[in-house]
Amino acid sequence: MIVSKKHISRLSKYRKALFRFSELGFVKVFSDTLGEAVGVTASQVRKDFSLFGIHGHKRGGYQIDTLIDKLQNILGKDFEQKVIIVGIGNIGNALIKYKAFENEGIKIVAGFDIDPAKVNRKGTVPIFPLKEIHDYVKKHNITIGIIAVPDIVAQEVFDVMLSAGIKGILNFAPIRYKGAENVFINNVNFQVELENVIYFVNMFKHEKD
Amino acid sequence: MIVSKKHISRLSKYRKALFRFSELGFVKVFSDTLGEAVGVTASQVRKDFSLFGIHGHKRGGYQIDTLIDKLQNILGKDFEQKVIIVGIGNIGNALIKYKAFENEGIKIVAGFDIDPAKVNRKGTVPIFPLKEIHDYVKKHNITIGIIAVPDIVAQEVFDVMLSAGIKGILNFAPIRYKGAENVFINNVNFQVELENVIYFVNMFKHEKD
Repeated sequence: MIVSKKHISRLSKYRKALFRFSELGFVKVFSDTLGEAVGVTASQVRKDFSLFGIHGHKRGGYQIDTLIDKLQNILGKDFEQKVIIVGIGNIGNALIKYKAFENEGIKIVAGFDIDPAKVNRKGTVPIFPLKEIHDYVKKHNITIGIIAVPDIVAQEVFDVMLSAGIKGILNFAPIRYKGAENVFINNVNFQVELENVIYFVNMFKHEKD
Repeated sequence: MIVSKKHISRLSKYRKALFRFSELGFVKVFSDTLGEAVGVTASQVRKDFSLFGIHGHKRGGYQIDTLIDKLQNILGKDFEQKVIIVGIGNIGNALIKYKAFENEGIKIVAGFDIDPAKVNRKGTVPIFPLKEIHDYVKKHNITIGIIAVPDIVAQEVFDVMLSAGIKGILNFAPIRYKGAENVFINNVNFQVELENVIYFVNMFKHEKD
């Protein structure tokens, strides 16, 4: 089964909409109502769910509780997801303070940095020296990590994280990693994202000229 | 012509690779060499360029200088791109300090915030009260902005930016904007990006079980 990032992003939106419907007292929902709530067609909703073996009833729609349970499981929301972060610079700090993670059952449990000045074992999110990452990851059974270090040290940090047992990485360093066969990497590149905006605005301007 | 984000992202990578080739003293490059440098096939390279009317010669390849000039123009790199940012919190500050932008000819020229404590007219990147955004954007002819405010005020900030003349937005607030017909919005949602990593790691774990 091939599942794209866009598909998961939609599942995440359905989940949020379903919680809202449930809070409003609804028990069942039709694909067209759910589709409207997240900005997609009813047939897209049915297609997305059928991929995971979830089918609605033509007359009754989908049972909201059942749908929420299945989505919680698919999206890994049925237990708290513990995440570590390496690199406590500007972006690292911003992510540690990013409140929306906790609302979604994601918790950054620890940070790591090579700079001794950044180490703070007593913080709300404790910051440890990078060399302690192996022990921490093993002890707490962590599989997800964030890389927010400068690109010149990113490959080194990546190797350390993999050897510690990390299986999935949200990566903010603009480099291509070597030895990335057995790890899932999701890149966020601010520069590329901003370049996209600039590109489309310039295109639009030229079209009007 | 429909141009996707992925396409632009590839053009941006070609551009960087071409600068490296040029620095190494190369004058011409073949599509297979360029493809290898950025991790795509030779036919993908040719397809990407032909969309913009750029064609190589079967025997001689592409002229690097010409290619760089065209890409600079397409990607809006032929002059400095001035960008403003609204919301000088953790993410806003991280973006202002993000060095990779300037390397790519992008400059965050000013920040805006409703909090008077954040205002700093004398900083390297000056921070102004939000109400001054209209004058600033008009005076400096800015069309690109970044939204890095909490979601509860994001729609309001969005409306102000549009009325000031902003045409393209890199958005970090996790909301869907109303009245977004005439503006290009590119959303970066850390939570969704991290959820993607979690999802794929969980899938892989289940497969192995």
